[in-house]
Amino acid sequence: MENVKVIIWGLGAMGGGMADLLLKKKGVDIVGAVGRGSKIGKSMYDYIKTERGDRPDVIIGSPEDVIKKGAADVVLTCTDSFTKTAFDRLKFVLEQGINVVSSAEEMAYPMAQEPELAKQLDEIAKANGVSIIGTGINPGLIMDLLVVTMTGCCEEVEHIVSRRVNSLSPFGPAVMVEQGIGITEQEFIDGVKSGHLSGHVGFHESISMIADAIGWKVEKITQTMEPILTDVDRKSPYGFAKAGNAAGCAMKGYGYVDGELKIEMDHPQQIEPEQVGVQTGDYVIIKGTPNINMVNSPEVPGGIGTIAMCVNMIPHIINARPGLYTMIDLPVPRVIMGDMRDLIHPEAKIVK
Amino acid sequence: MENVKVIIWGLGAMGGGMADLLLKKKGVDIVGAVGRGSKIGKSMYDYIKTERGDRPDVIIGSPEDVIKKGAADVVLTCTDSFTKTAFDRLKFVLEQGINVVSSAEEMAYPMAQEPELAKQLDEIAKANGVSIIGTGINPGLIMDLLVVTMTGCCEEVEHIVSRRVNSLSPFGPAVMVEQGIGITEQEFIDGVKSGHLSGHVGFHESISMIADAIGWKVEKITQTMEPILTDVDRKSPYGFAKAGNAAGCAMKGYGYVDGELKIEMDHPQQIEPEQVGVQTGDYVIIKGTPNINMVNSPEVPGGIGTIAMCVNMIPHIINARPGLYTMIDLPVPRVIMGDMRDLIHPEAKIVK
Repeated sequence: MENVKVIIWGLGAMGGGMADLLLKKKGVDIVGAVGRGSKIGKSMYDYIKTERGDRPDVIIGSPEDVIKKGAADVVLTCTDSFTKTAFDRLKFVLEQGINVVSSAEEMAYPMAQEPELAKQLDEIAKANGVSIIGTGINPGLIMDLLVVTMTGCCEEVEHIVSRRVNSLSPFGPAVMVEQGIGITEQEFIDGVKSGHLSGHVGFHESISMIADAIGWKVEKITQTMEPILTDVDRKSPYGFAKAGNAAGCAMKGYGYVDGELKIEMDHPQQIEPEQVGVQTGDYVIIKGTPNINMVNSPEVPGGIGTIAMCVNMIPHIINARPGLYTMIDLPVPRVIMGDMRDLIHPEAKIVK
Repeated sequence: MENVKVIIWGLGAMGGGMADLLLKKKGVDIVGAVGRGSKIGKSMYDYIKTERGDRPDVIIGSPEDVIKKGAADVVLTCTDSFTKTAFDRLKFVLEQGINVVSSAEEMAYPMAQEPELAKQLDEIAKANGVSIIGTGINPGLIMDLLVVTMTGCCEEVEHIVSRRVNSLSPFGPAVMVEQGIGITEQEFIDGVKSGHLSGHVGFHESISMIADAIGWKVEKITQTMEPILTDVDRKSPYGFAKAGNAAGCAMKGYGYVDGELKIEMDHPQQIEPEQVGVQTGDYVIIKGTPNINMVNSPEVPGGIGTIAMCVNMIPHIINARPGLYTMIDLPVPRVIMGDMRDLIHPEAKIVK
């Protein structure tokens, strides 16, 4: 069997990290990279950590240049957070008859906030005989799929809390801005009002995924976003918060079923949590039969986790029958320690 | 759509518990129960906790009386721990064209120790257009599927420890005997030698499931079994261990890849662990990128967990295409809080 052929669309921290990871794996080749502006015409290796060495070069091109029928088995799209802004790109890939793994947070469960676009993606995928999924560490695993999995050993579930207390210190300048690191309380409040602070994208998706999986009909989802004001100066590689200003962004999400609060999301993100004695971790707390009281500490780092999840879902999405999938529809993700080709059904391979 | 129709084969603690759970759920009926000896001809309600009330009675019958073509959508078989001893029963159900969920520990990954029987079950299932899976809390989730899931957010994995420290106190007399509760150290050693102490069944299955999922080729699996000798008298509802005797059974399992120990199972089970300060819990400890250090404490209770897992997999196995499945092949288990019929694909329903 030919190696699994992958195109990466978007060579930022996530797409670049996926390239680095794929270059370490067996039975898989990066056959194309899509970028824009001044990146076009340059080598992918100029934008990732791995040295090219004696590998054939991968020249960054436009979507039309790179993504052509039969060019790859899958495209990893790492360009957006929102289904609406990603839609045309995803449609373009599917129409070339190539499978898609998207890192867009909303694509982890697009039926939550964009049911019409989700329906269209499903139809386009089926019409072109390929499949598409959105995933990442969160949404994608920690605050949703892992919760669903743990309900699997429950007879009944009454209430769910999913908590992710994580450090933003490893992240770069873009995340510092999105999360409001270093700004004043008033600037934070204004930023939330104007929509300039995105914070975490994914509560609607995680809550809807959990509820749909276990058969709760969620009638209302709300969320709040508050600054985490620091008492002391905090400094991370790309962030700085003076005492009194925001060192992070605390988001909470609430899903209601029959008028009752049934699913709670609690996701405080900040730089240098250790400095103020905050222990990071991923928590699944289920009130049910039995109770679940689970923690992974420290948390799975967001960057590595998203990179791994997207790469590890490649075989599953190639093998899936045509259509739009979410993480609750496919077998569990798993690290790929062997040859990626061993995981591919021959009849599902595009580049034979 | 007709309610999901279920037959339960074996009304011990597990099968009886599944009956009780199913009677609380919407969109599902128990249409038959299979037992043996003096149970035949009696009411299922004589052997479970739920009162019959004004429900139609379910009279326990022989397999031939109860399991007939078109009689149910699925049979839950709760009769065995081993694939070899369960095989004829599983074959019989499949040949009547009915799907199967088995609680037999070895059936969680029958290709580990009974590859030939696994192949036959796959062929028989396909020839009869139905599907079969083995599951339970362990093997089935805690020491294998949960581990695999957490590798899904890893770029690389070097070493895996799966630890389950649990209490045997809720269990009945049969488990007390199987695990050697109350016997002397010498009796325990003799029991291990003679094969009379079964201890935990499932390490070969869990290790093989993890290794196959992530692409490690396991060349050797070994296990050890030691008494947990107690310093103090310990008493549980069905067990008693005098100071000096066995209050439990500590099992360890080891999976080797390329001569290196890569997967470790650590599973000490005992009555009244709290009495001696042992904190119970389920642990997933992965050395990799990133490290995973997860604990659910206290542990998911074995009985409830197995009952829930088998019931919660019913929709997945009805919907699956014909063949033999394991937990790494199907979407994650999830509690069923709504109408079970909402989870069934109409074309997969046997009793229309």
